[in-house]
Amino acid sequence: MSLNFLFNPKSIAVVGVSSDPSKLGSVVFTNMLSSGFEGNLYPVNPKYTEVYNRKCFAKLSDIPGDIDLVCIVVPPQLVNDILEDAGTKGVKGAVIITAGFAETGEQGAKLQEEIVETAKKHNIRVLGPNCLGLIVTKSKINLSFAATDALDGNIAFVSQSGAFLTAMLDMSLEKSLGFSHLISIGNKADLDENDFVKEWLDDPEIKAIGAYLEDLESGRGLIEIYKKSKTKKPLVIFKPGETQESQKAISSHTGSLAGSYEVFDTAMRQAGITIAKDINDMFNFLLGFSWSELPKGKNVAVVTNAGGPGVIATDYIVKNDLKLAEISEDTKKLLASVLPFNASFHNPVDVIGDANAERYRNTLDILIKEESIDAIFVLLTPQIVTEVEETAKVVINNSKMTNKPIIPVFLGGKYISFGLQKFYDEKIPAFKDISEAIETFAVLYNYVSFLENEKEQTEANTHITSKYLNKGKYKDEVSKYLSNNFIALPENLVTKLADEVRIILPKQVLTSTIEEAIEFAKDNYPVVIKATTEVIVHKTDEKALYLNINDEETLRKNYAELRFTIQNKFNIADPKILIQEQVKANEEIFVGANRDGNMDVYEVDKPGFGHLLAFGKGGIYTEVYKDIGYALAPSSRDDILKALKKTKVYEIIQGARGRQKLALEKLIDVIESVQKMVLLYPEIKSLDINPVLLTTDRAVTVDLKIFVSR
Amino acid sequence: MSLNFLFNPKSIAVVGVSSDPSKLGSVVFTNMLSSGFEGNLYPVNPKYTEVYNRKCFAKLSDIPGDIDLVCIVVPPQLVNDILEDAGTKGVKGAVIITAGFAETGEQGAKLQEEIVETAKKHNIRVLGPNCLGLIVTKSKINLSFAATDALDGNIAFVSQSGAFLTAMLDMSLEKSLGFSHLISIGNKADLDENDFVKEWLDDPEIKAIGAYLEDLESGRGLIEIYKKSKTKKPLVIFKPGETQESQKAISSHTGSLAGSYEVFDTAMRQAGITIAKDINDMFNFLLGFSWSELPKGKNVAVVTNAGGPGVIATDYIVKNDLKLAEISEDTKKLLASVLPFNASFHNPVDVIGDANAERYRNTLDILIKEESIDAIFVLLTPQIVTEVEETAKVVINNSKMTNKPIIPVFLGGKYISFGLQKFYDEKIPAFKDISEAIETFAVLYNYVSFLENEKEQTEANTHITSKYLNKGKYKDEVSKYLSNNFIALPENLVTKLADEVRIILPKQVLTSTIEEAIEFAKDNYPVVIKATTEVIVHKTDEKALYLNINDEETLRKNYAELRFTIQNKFNIADPKILIQEQVKANEEIFVGANRDGNMDVYEVDKPGFGHLLAFGKGGIYTEVYKDIGYALAPSSRDDILKALKKTKVYEIIQGARGRQKLALEKLIDVIESVQKMVLLYPEIKSLDINPVLLTTDRAVTVDLKIFVSR
Repeated sequence: MSLNFLFNPKSIAVVGVSSDPSKLGSVVFTNMLSSGFEGNLYPVNPKYTEVYNRKCFAKLSDIPGDIDLVCIVVPPQLVNDILEDAGTKGVKGAVIITAGFAETGEQGAKLQEEIVETAKKHNIRVLGPNCLGLIVTKSKINLSFAATDALDGNIAFVSQSGAFLTAMLDMSLEKSLGFSHLISIGNKADLDENDFVKEWLDDPEIKAIGAYLEDLESGRGLIEIYKKSKTKKPLVIFKPGETQESQKAISSHTGSLAGSYEVFDTAMRQAGITIAKDINDMFNFLLGFSWSELPKGKNVAVVTNAGGPGVIATDYIVKNDLKLAEISEDTKKLLASVLPFNASFHNPVDVIGDANAERYRNTLDILIKEESIDAIFVLLTPQIVTEVEETAKVVINNSKMTNKPIIPVFLGGKYISFGLQKFYDEKIPAFKDISEAIETFAVLYNYVSFLENEKEQTEANTHITSKYLNKGKYKDEVSKYLSNNFIALPENLVTKLADEVRIILPKQVLTSTIEEAIEFAKDNYPVVIKATTEVIVHKTDEKALYLNINDEETLRKNYAELRFTIQNKFNIADPKILIQEQVKANEEIFVGANRDGNMDVYEVDKPGFGHLLAFGKGGIYTEVYKDIGYALAPSSRDDILKALKKTKVYEIIQGARGRQKLALEKLIDVIESVQKMVLLYPEIKSLDINPVLLTTDRAVTVDLKIFVSR
Repeated sequence: MSLNFLFNPKSIAVVGVSSDPSKLGSVVFTNMLSSGFEGNLYPVNPKYTEVYNRKCFAKLSDIPGDIDLVCIVVPPQLVNDILEDAGTKGVKGAVIITAGFAETGEQGAKLQEEIVETAKKHNIRVLGPNCLGLIVTKSKINLSFAATDALDGNIAFVSQSGAFLTAMLDMSLEKSLGFSHLISIGNKADLDENDFVKEWLDDPEIKAIGAYLEDLESGRGLIEIYKKSKTKKPLVIFKPGETQESQKAISSHTGSLAGSYEVFDTAMRQAGITIAKDINDMFNFLLGFSWSELPKGKNVAVVTNAGGPGVIATDYIVKNDLKLAEISEDTKKLLASVLPFNASFHNPVDVIGDANAERYRNTLDILIKEESIDAIFVLLTPQIVTEVEETAKVVINNSKMTNKPIIPVFLGGKYISFGLQKFYDEKIPAFKDISEAIETFAVLYNYVSFLENEKEQTEANTHITSKYLNKGKYKDEVSKYLSNNFIALPENLVTKLADEVRIILPKQVLTSTIEEAIEFAKDNYPVVIKATTEVIVHKTDEKALYLNINDEETLRKNYAELRFTIQNKFNIADPKILIQEQVKANEEIFVGANRDGNMDVYEVDKPGFGHLLAFGKGGIYTEVYKDIGYALAPSSRDDILKALKKTKVYEIIQGARGRQKLALEKLIDVIESVQKMVLLYPEIKSLDINPVLLTTDRAVTVDLKIFVSR
């Protein structure tokens, strides 16, 4: 394990311990004292010879014997010297809790650069600065200033916010959820989320990983680490900042620039990473992954002692794309033998308000054996004869007898809390909110379902990248337009690039004679004529576009008019005019791509995710309906189809309401061509086709715009 | 008060009390004994002469003195006799807890009809049957078999599910939320939600009303009661059953047929009623209305001791259509004087992780005085120096000094619970979930904002109904098509109705001569020709529709072809052919209406909501994008515009991205005409225009279909 010095050190020194127990350094040191750490632990502070009944050292190099890990809690301007001293001592890792670095502005950033350099010089890996520290339960390490220690468990958690970590920790104590690791990464001057995720994916004692991140160090890096891992386990990420306003808030408090939420969302989902949308989600999902069996399928049963909650559960089951299991006739007969006549033997199974624990047991005994059921939600409302604690015991026993997830949902507050406590004690994922319970289960199911469909995608996609990356024929020409700004490539270069990846443009000819125009048009009516983009950017405004030309007469007239306009307005004596076939589209589709990160984003560990492909309803409705599917390059044909299926315009393409099917495969060809293009030329910052004209047998690209930037 | 006998009875008898304290009758009776009721309380059961140290009567008529209210807890087949006895005794109200009536099937329904008749005969109002009973805290009545009594408070709650009520009650005990009334209405054989809502709207001691309903007795009735109330107060309704699957679940457990969720949703929102989507929503919203001041505006400030939660809060503020208040420069200066240099003085105000209670107080003291702020969310994560309980006290004191809502959100579990408890004790609406806190505040703000915009809408709308209802010119003709099925009106009658309400159809002529066709066409090119609907239903399939006819030559050719087709295929010697102007639409709009309830729905207290008007994107995209706005008849022009603004196609109508504005007012004319038509003819079950062709100056209706049914 590469992070052994951090997770399993033999000796730790804490620099900045004082006699005042309320100072952070003292808190960290006393946390270590009470955590039961079995290695050597040394306080360091030149002001004292003894603190907390331990000999206190003036500096690290005074300590006899090796030091694996040092924790630094001193004013920021002193940190560098301590790192130098640590270097002399041969320390392997430093946890820098001290704040006042990059998060405070330019000066702090400079200070941070200095300490990073010093650490590098001495081969010291750094956690922080500006962090809460770390807790590793198995090694009995609480090298943090958290107010409390964590319970032992199988969840590893990394957080860019110490406060978020603290809140999770407080939640975990209430519900007895345990952690293997809790790591606060602070400013991520050296070690970042990817280092930890990578290590944890290989640790067989960890069942699930959680991460709270305000910016991602390298999005593509994280995705690749996760995709390539052979010992896959659930990874749950919460990244706030869906709205523009919250992105401003992030910038103001971390100084980091948050990327677009869409690219994050697409990248995570495509890689099979679970997204949490708030702190409760994060907690519930980790609790689910930690404590529950994974379901085999999405057919769930609901047992309830009241009709209403059964109805509510049904709504959430449907909304979360799960299914109410069909209960077999045999099972219904068995249920009838143990339930009163007015119970409901359908799903939801209503055991009626006067159900005691015994009736719940009889029902569960039967349902657990029903093959069509993959998981059971056990709903309880505290009615007069309801045996809250006894029923909890029944559910606990039942869930020990099966590997189907059994998820209790006890509705209420005061009385049901006694039941819930029993569940937490036995590590049964229990809820007092129907929607939270079902959403958590859906997350578990989606993870399972992702694993099943994953197959060999990863390798296929990596192959796409290595095949095309930076291999464009016109690299030299493109590079001429590169700068830090957005620059549009000229039409002739765009045409070359389109040709290279076989994007089909309308048949067209560029000519300055009416004869040539007529010759082209005769096989291609209806046609359009227009000025080239070099001449006029907004064609329709300037009456430089003529549509629906069906015959030679009209063509002659319009050609003459357009020629006259260009000659006069733009002072071009012998202008070239573009004549195109006019494709009659059944549907207009938008296809685009945007790069997240710089043009070197496909190299190792650069910030950003690369190119996000976007496609959906085109034409004037693109902005209005925002009916767009997303896929991150490199995506397989199958990935693209999956994303396309999520759009509504897909229904139209598939011939909704008895209409003709359109050329789906041809459309995917266009999207694949666009993907190929952005990989051939990662210089492309943004690409936009609006529309692709889709017919029953063609997908013709008009108005392809390409922007490049570094 | 008409329900005085129920809410403030002088004497109560409980029929069905037994010596076994676990029986429901005994539970109800002992609940009454311990609730502190100051009136007379009598047990009734022929088997005993004494129970619970009270004289037990064999029957009601044996009791000396008057009985206002009787509670019946005996087997179902005995209920009727007891009601007869109650009638003799002059009892005013009966709470029938007994189950086994309409909810069990046909036989039970018959039994229920019998008891309703008996009650009516004796002028006894009935609550239930199949209910949990009722709790009225002010009168110290707990005439229910709930496991516990409620705390005193200002919320009145009515529930169609006893279990839901029980769960709410258990939640309320945990957070010390009090109720004035808790009513379980069971099968609603007589008294229903509308009776209670009406009474409670007039009760000045009640601050907010909650209702859990699986079906609505009379949707229009409820809306009218609420709209007409002069002492408006918040009404929160939770009706499960958004999905088809859950509607099935409702039918199976109550036997009631749930209406469409859309009409419910539209009707509630238009009336200013708050919709809860689950049990937590219901609880939080009621707690908010009960404990919080109402906000003056939607500009909120966030104070936090951690950046992350501030970002999360910002996301939810934006998603809930609230605004982060702009903090003035003066206030920022004041903040700078009490906060450390690295704090954030923008909104969210970050008081930094080492904030103690004092720092929170200083910050709140300043922010409360800032005029641009309407409410303050106080976020806290339990960090090492955080003073959870002290900070809670600070927030409590501050919120007593202002009438701006101050809403604490303490994130965590174990430690922060001590702070939360302090808030609940002082009736401060506090949360441990950011999204719940902000959603609850948004509900409060939306209520305030609704009240402000409400004005004289109600009367205007009532006026529309009385002006048009059932006053159509062609009532007799329409009534010929009435049955219990869906019947389409024939084209000529549809045209008459369209004419009556001035719906503009394309210019057209129906003719059997080509000369007349040419005469019409010459002023109206381009035109279309088609067979009448009577001849062919699916016009395009049979090649009975010719579009884009621009000249006489084409018209002659197409006319001859169509005539030939009709003559041959349908054996009509001299067919009439329809010639219409072809309107070139800038946008196709869908307009429709559907009736919820029977044709008598506009009479008093009938089930259903009446006609739901629907309008939005038309053409082939109607089903795909479901971009539809809804308004319930009668709606004012303003209501319709408001609903239209919620659609995305409205952006197109308003000329999105520099395009031409379309004839919005003409479109609203069409919708108003449709509304007029369905009120003139409430026989109309369903009406469908797809599309209305909208241009820059016209809104032309093509393809108007009208279906009637009883």
